[in-house]
Amino acid sequence: MLQVTEVRVRYAETDQMGVVYHANYLAWCDIGRTDLIRALGGMTYAELEREGTALAVVEAHLRYVKPARYDDLIRVTTRVTEVRSRVVRFDYEINIADGGLIAIGYTTLVAMTREGRGSCIPEHLRQQLDRVRVNA
Amino acid sequence: MLQVTEVRVRYAETDQMGVVYHANYLAWCDIGRTDLIRALGGMTYAELEREGTALAVVEAHLRYVKPARYDDLIRVTTRVTEVRSRVVRFDYEINIADGGLIAIGYTTLVAMTREGRGSCIPEHLRQQLDRVRVNA
Amino acid sequence: MLQVTEVRVRYAETDQMGVVYHANYLAWCDIGRTDLIRALGGMTYAELEREGTALAVVEAHLRYVKPARYDDLIRVTTRVTEVRSRVVRFDYEINIADGGLIAIGYTTLVAMTREGRGSCIPEHLRQQLDRVRVNA
Amino acid sequence: MLQVTEVRVRYAETDQMGVVYHANYLAWCDIGRTDLIRALGGMTYAELEREGTALAVVEAHLRYVKPARYDDLIRVTTRVTEVRSRVVRFDYEINIADGGLIAIGYTTLVAMTREGRGSCIPEHLRQQLDRVRVNA
Repeated sequence: MLQVTEVRVRYAETDQMGVVYHANYLAWCDIGRTDLIRALGGMTYAELEREGTALAVVEAHLRYVKPARYDDLIRVTTRVTEVRSRVVRFDYEINIADGGLIAIGYTTLVAMTREGRGSCIPEHLRQQLDRVRVNA
Repeated sequence: MLQVTEVRVRYAETDQMGVVYHANYLAWCDIGRTDLIRALGGMTYAELEREGTALAVVEAHLRYVKPARYDDLIRVTTRVTEVRSRVVRFDYEINIADGGLIAIGYTTLVAMTREGRGSCIPEHLRQQLDRVRVNA
Repeated sequence: MLQVTEVRVRYAETDQMGVVYHANYLAWCDIGRTDLIRALGGMTYAELEREGTALAVVEAHLRYVKPARYDDLIRVTTRVTEVRSRVVRFDYEINIADGGLIAIGYTTLVAMTREGRGSCIPEHLRQQLDRVRVNA
Repeated sequence: MLQVTEVRVRYAETDQMGVVYHANYLAWCDIGRTDLIRALGGMTYAELEREGTALAVVEAHLRYVKPARYDDLIRVTTRVTEVRSRVVRFDYEINIADGGLIAIGYTTLVAMTREGRGSCIPEHLRQQLDRVRVNA
């Protein structure tokens, strides 16, 4: 499964180089995986946290190919590429909607309780994620 | 009492106009009032929240006079200008350290419980704030 | 004219109080006025800047009524409430899409050249803005 | 050479998990390398850009070990780990000032002209960076 999410670049996301500040891509990836989890049709990520399980980012990698600019329409394609009992990895491909690839990356997340202790991904979600998993 | 806090403009805070994005001044005001509360010598704002009382912003006003730029050293001068049982107002004057005034503003905050219900400012803090209060 | 824009609250926009950090509302207002200018059917704001005119925020005011939370669908209603040769004011009403009012505010902007000197709003845009102007 | 920079966690940087949102670490890394370049004693990064050369991030990697919290004093240790004619890599170790390691990472940057075309790192800066280079 590919989750495709569109975001329009906000003025607040640009920097004085006239392009999107590199840290902001991580917030787009976050939106991408939130939408992917929503599309699975079970609990949304918001509900998951309310139920007591958070997914905390433990690793993030981004490779920036071309800049994104203010008001560009951005397409974030998100895939699940690894699922373990406590860990899930998402890979991202970020494109300008009517242009080319601007970045690729991944984030690895671990399940945590509200108190910050390691936990398991709830079984139903883990199965759903595993079913849509593809190779990185 | 005047609390003077210095922050250096971060690249992340600039926008494509080549100046600091206007929303980021509110985060500087936040640092200013945090430092003022720390300087009172009682509970820090972090401790206040851990004890169960948050101060939530209910009004914010900023007037922007001149732009701030990347790597500028910014001086935020914070004053307490109103103290009531549930409400506190802070006024801010923001300067470039070796230049002129760039913005003035204020924020009004109300005390809340962790659950988001209205609450009173803890008595000790309220008295400390009242003691350093000046006119707006 | 009312411009209605929807944004979904991003995780990045929350703070440890479990609600949207107050500064982030200003970025939503920015999206609201960008969309309003786009809806006028002439130059987009991005094109306006490329042509050499920026609209810089010189005043911002927000009153926060109720908190917004992660994943809420937010509806920003933007109106033009003042138009002069160099100045335009936008008023905002911010609602949770299936809930009530969460904030109201306004921002006043002045036209600037790329070099940061005062300038006039291009005549065509000024007329368009004036045509959709309502009272504050 | 190790550049050690301290930043205090801002409320704006927290998220509803009660910890610093992961994207914000990249802004701290940015501050770290800015301070390292300042400490070299030649052009600051701000001056470098004014002279026409920007350093654009083309790769970023972060591994998050422990969370950072509001008001924590953070220590970012920055090293130069690779210098080529157009490319420089910085490695970061991020600690809580009175605690342990919270993250490690690196960013790779390439020199660009103001127009966004590939360029060389100015010779004087390249030599300075090379002199303080250590192994990753």
